[in-house]
Amino acid sequence: MKREQWSKNFSEWFNDIVGTADIMETRYPVKGLYVWLPYGLKLRNSALSILMGLLERSGHQEVLFPLLIPETLFKKEADHIRGFEGQVYWVTHGGHDKLDVRLALRPTSETSIYPMFSLWIRAHTDLPLKVFQVVNIFRYETKMTKPLIRLREVTTFKEAHTAHATADEAEAQVQEAVKMYKEFFDELGIPYTISKRPPWDTFAGADYSVAFDTLAPDGKTLQIGTVHNLGQNFAKVYNLKYENKVGGHEHVYQTCYGISERAIAAIMMAHGDDSGLCLPPKVAPIQIVIVPIPYKESDVSIDEIVKSVKNELEAACVKVHLDDRDIRPGSKYYYWERRGVPLRVEIGPEDVKKKQVMIVRRDTGKKQAVPMKGLAKTVEKALDEIEKDLRERAWKSFRESIKDAGSIEEAKGLLEKHGGIVRMLWCGVATCGEKMGDDLGGSVLGEEFEDAKPVLGKCPVCSKNAKTSVLVAKTY
Amino acid sequence: MKREQWSKNFSEWFNDIVGTADIMETRYPVKGLYVWLPYGLKLRNSALSILMGLLERSGHQEVLFPLLIPETLFKKEADHIRGFEGQVYWVTHGGHDKLDVRLALRPTSETSIYPMFSLWIRAHTDLPLKVFQVVNIFRYETKMTKPLIRLREVTTFKEAHTAHATADEAEAQVQEAVKMYKEFFDELGIPYTISKRPPWDTFAGADYSVAFDTLAPDGKTLQIGTVHNLGQNFAKVYNLKYENKVGGHEHVYQTCYGISERAIAAIMMAHGDDSGLCLPPKVAPIQIVIVPIPYKESDVSIDEIVKSVKNELEAACVKVHLDDRDIRPGSKYYYWERRGVPLRVEIGPEDVKKKQVMIVRRDTGKKQAVPMKGLAKTVEKALDEIEKDLRERAWKSFRESIKDAGSIEEAKGLLEKHGGIVRMLWCGVATCGEKMGDDLGGSVLGEEFEDAKPVLGKCPVCSKNAKTSVLVAKTY
Repeated sequence: MKREQWSKNFSEWFNDIVGTADIMETRYPVKGLYVWLPYGLKLRNSALSILMGLLERSGHQEVLFPLLIPETLFKKEADHIRGFEGQVYWVTHGGHDKLDVRLALRPTSETSIYPMFSLWIRAHTDLPLKVFQVVNIFRYETKMTKPLIRLREVTTFKEAHTAHATADEAEAQVQEAVKMYKEFFDELGIPYTISKRPPWDTFAGADYSVAFDTLAPDGKTLQIGTVHNLGQNFAKVYNLKYENKVGGHEHVYQTCYGISERAIAAIMMAHGDDSGLCLPPKVAPIQIVIVPIPYKESDVSIDEIVKSVKNELEAACVKVHLDDRDIRPGSKYYYWERRGVPLRVEIGPEDVKKKQVMIVRRDTGKKQAVPMKGLAKTVEKALDEIEKDLRERAWKSFRESIKDAGSIEEAKGLLEKHGGIVRMLWCGVATCGEKMGDDLGGSVLGEEFEDAKPVLGKCPVCSKNAKTSVLVAKTY
Repeated sequence: MKREQWSKNFSEWFNDIVGTADIMETRYPVKGLYVWLPYGLKLRNSALSILMGLLERSGHQEVLFPLLIPETLFKKEADHIRGFEGQVYWVTHGGHDKLDVRLALRPTSETSIYPMFSLWIRAHTDLPLKVFQVVNIFRYETKMTKPLIRLREVTTFKEAHTAHATADEAEAQVQEAVKMYKEFFDELGIPYTISKRPPWDTFAGADYSVAFDTLAPDGKTLQIGTVHNLGQNFAKVYNLKYENKVGGHEHVYQTCYGISERAIAAIMMAHGDDSGLCLPPKVAPIQIVIVPIPYKESDVSIDEIVKSVKNELEAACVKVHLDDRDIRPGSKYYYWERRGVPLRVEIGPEDVKKKQVMIVRRDTGKKQAVPMKGLAKTVEKALDEIEKDLRERAWKSFRESIKDAGSIEEAKGLLEKHGGIVRMLWCGVATCGEKMGDDLGGSVLGEEFEDAKPVLGKCPVCSKNAKTSVLVAKTY
């Protein structure tokens, strides 16, 4: 796993691979809009179906809301609109007519979904209400855009929205969502920290926000999932009330949480190398590529064997592709390495004679002769090992990149030298937290949501006693 | 199958059932926009996956293009823009900024996809190129909108786009698409005619259009699928050229074809009755509902048996739901009939004693005692029969509603009395065709695409010799 280009020039690596590995077409002539190519879309769909499975198994129902939100409805929750108004695209005309009410392209769907919730929720028996949808959302990004990461059209926004009778139940829902997202990222082998975002970086309209961050090879963190406890803020604005057991009417408590195609970027970050992608077998559009190695001089025909190997693997439900193009095997290796196919099977006349095949792991490059007999079992085991090794390798390097720092200087040194994430003590006062982020040229990700570390020491900004510790990093 | 309300007041029936059968929430506060409810969305997703399976098996690759199309790109094909400019929504502002170039919400995606095709197609080896996507599209409808039928946001637009080296190959692709769509509608038991639309009703930018029409209970036809041969029209505008075998450069030939959530409306039209939906088992979100019939006086507990029946059916991969709510069985019947669950299983103490259950067909209401032993096999057979019977019943009534008429008066009489479709002779001159449609207060659907009928007689408008026959109907 050579990772020079990948770690030294990550941005270039990423922009190159996203196109040349057939994930996205990046030449669409509008800033921040990209085209999913068939290979990339298969990867996206596999990841998505893992996520949707988790949601369905925990009692979320799929719905689909309109894209367009009337300005009047959109602007009801004051904090929410303050958070989003700079980023909203507005439809003003239909055909040759000017519209009476401007329509927002949803930047997120609270303001389209909750007015309908108010029609659906009548009694405590209607609660909890847990829905999700997978939709396109729009943000008028003025910063530099980047495929999968910073988009004007997020094509794959999985957003869940829930309503509950009590604050405790909403709180428990936040926990369930965090657990579910952990499971999702674990399936993909993506390492993460979970932070409770500081107040100045909370979702517009939420009581508090919890976020998952992973780390790019360039040392910057990428937010890949968020869970928000909305309290009763939206419920009060959109009149979401239920009749409780004794006939009284109360506002519901709400949560919402989302994951986007940044999860696909995170796969690229966690498992790539200089040769390209390295996809976790669970989501790889092709898990095994078979490359026949014909020798013109040989008297052994390998065609039949190659086909029977393909059939055997397909019968075992492995996603297998036979590359029988008329080009050199070396070009095929290069081609499929770039696209991250986890395992390559090579079959030549010598192998046929010996009743074996060569298997080559994409992640380690390790090449091994294995008997043709029982091949399906062998490759399944190999794929499981790759899955496990990818996850462990990614987590190991991620954990090593989180370091404690006792002073701004030390933290600065660490971030400048290695990037990554620093853990610092904090007094809990917003101005100190914001200054900490600014001084480090980064952002406060927040307190760790789980496994809070014992705190003993001073806030490095004001030198008062620390109340908690926070993670700080340069961010995407 | 009582069909009084369904046939006499179809529009009311439809508007009522679409909401009360949990297909869509129709109270979203923007005209022409609706919300897919979980039950409706499951139905939609099942139908969609049949369609996507057909596309994938015939070599189409899934892609996903951006929603927003810059005005400059959108307006390149003159016919196309003439056809759509009255219907396009325009984004003019991002945040507080006025955009330099207005962005169209795609009303269809030729103008976003083909510029990328021009980057992807280099040589004859790149052809044929066959892609599809499932996306939301937008039409600024000024007519009365209707859930699933006439929408401002079509949430489920499956559009396929292909490019070919020769006109013959494009022609063959039209045939493949027609065959595929027939298979799709046959799976859903939706009857249809296939017509080659007259020139004045051809897709904007196409050489010719073929359309599938079904019939609503109110006697009006509904267009449910279209296939267009685009010739080289778009290829010339968007510069789609390939290098042929001898090194020359030629424009490609193209086709495109689409199906939307109107297919779900067509299911409702084909198989509904006064009690509600009647869903084909293949796409029903719930295929069997189990209703326990407890008698308080009985000493036999049915709970365990009910659960074991549920488990047995689930093990056989039947989509089964146990309705154990604490309400009267009669209310449950009503509830699930409305939602079109194809088969009901009732289990009471008497049944348990006799080791039997009652099965009740949604379509016929026929009730039958069947042995508990081998129940999975029995219900599978019953579901197959329902599927077959629904299809045959729908086709029978559809065929009966197509009638030949020799004169405008006769045709008028037929359409006024029965609605449906009339077949008329035509000289082939556009003015006569358009007059025919106008005089009948309807539209010329076009010549039948398959099984053309022998033509002998006069055009009922100009009395010259007829060249062909066309179908005419009042349309949605």
